[in-house]
Amino acid sequence: MAYITVPEGVPGIRSLVMFRPETGKYLYELAQVLLRGDSPLSQADRELIATHVSSRNNCMFCMSSHAAAARELYGEGRYVVDCVIQEVDTAPVSEKLKALLNIAGKVQQSGKAVTEADIAAAREQGATDRDIHDTVLIAATFSMFNRYVDGLNSYTPVDPAAYAEMGKRMTTLGYVLPQPAKV
Amino acid sequence: MAYITVPEGVPGIRSLVMFRPETGKYLYELAQVLLRGDSPLSQADRELIATHVSSRNNCMFCMSSHAAAARELYGEGRYVVDCVIQEVDTAPVSEKLKALLNIAGKVQQSGKAVTEADIAAAREQGATDRDIHDTVLIAATFSMFNRYVDGLNSYTPVDPAAYAEMGKRMTTLGYVLPQPAKV
Repeated sequence: MAYITVPEGVPGIRSLVMFRPETGKYLYELAQVLLRGDSPLSQADRELIATHVSSRNNCMFCMSSHAAAARELYGEGRYVVDCVIQEVDTAPVSEKLKALLNIAGKVQQSGKAVTEADIAAAREQGATDRDIHDTVLIAATFSMFNRYVDGLNSYTPVDPAAYAEMGKRMTTLGYVLPQPAKV
Repeated sequence: MAYITVPEGVPGIRSLVMFRPETGKYLYELAQVLLRGDSPLSQADRELIATHVSSRNNCMFCMSSHAAAARELYGEGRYVVDCVIQEVDTAPVSEKLKALLNIAGKVQQSGKAVTEADIAAAREQGATDRDIHDTVLIAATFSMFNRYVDGLNSYTPVDPAAYAEMGKRMTTLGYVLPQPAKV
């Protein structure tokens, strides 16, 4: 049960932004522009970066929902999502994406863990300033979302079907603030 | 030097949001509503929580700038800022604020580190749902800002006078997106 009084049965961050839509509004707008807006990274790759960071933070709600969104977006190539969750180094993704996932994993530990060598390795695989910027900001943003969701102990469904449904919504409707409910 | 091409001599997050104002807009709006908007926590106490988390993340830019803002807001009581940076347990702050700073420190480690006992200890000192919510979200948000600022190795001034100036701006103008510059 969540540590604060939020609408019952509403999972994860949705319950928290319904508690406080004034801040929730910007959290959802940030997610929308970062994961759905203009970027050299595909929406699928961006959801994969979000999944990877959430997995490393053991945030089951964020990991499961963004993994579901990534699977929707990759379509037939959806198996890469579980490969990355298990082990980035051996996952069948491009060397460029691997280098970016490595940077995201460093950001998950600490901003200071990212080294010049990590950046150089990504550039060698063709990463641009925008690729690097968006990777770091997605990883930093999920370091926030994961802490918000778990720090308030929000409801985490266990049924995989619930996440598959979320994945569909996240890839069709995008990140839309749920209507606040009276609690 | 920053890992990506940002306006020269512009410190910390300001240089990053000038690189990408589309996301920066929401980062600044979030900071404004969270640190300056309506809350049962004073603006000074909120800046102190931000300072505490940034200090624990060794993010010198965020720690120094928000410490300067907190000092401005506390006025004559400004000495508490350095006391909290050194050691929360012995700092001359209320037991309620101490319990909230403890929760913020847990969130800095991981969302999952926050326990029912941490929440109960804060409630015993009079903390409400909103106190707890705002504390967790401020701590989570600075876990993001710290990673964004350091993960891209943005410029960190060393002159204390530069931060004193920032503290004045942050407490008078608030969090206003800097105008994007051509780079």
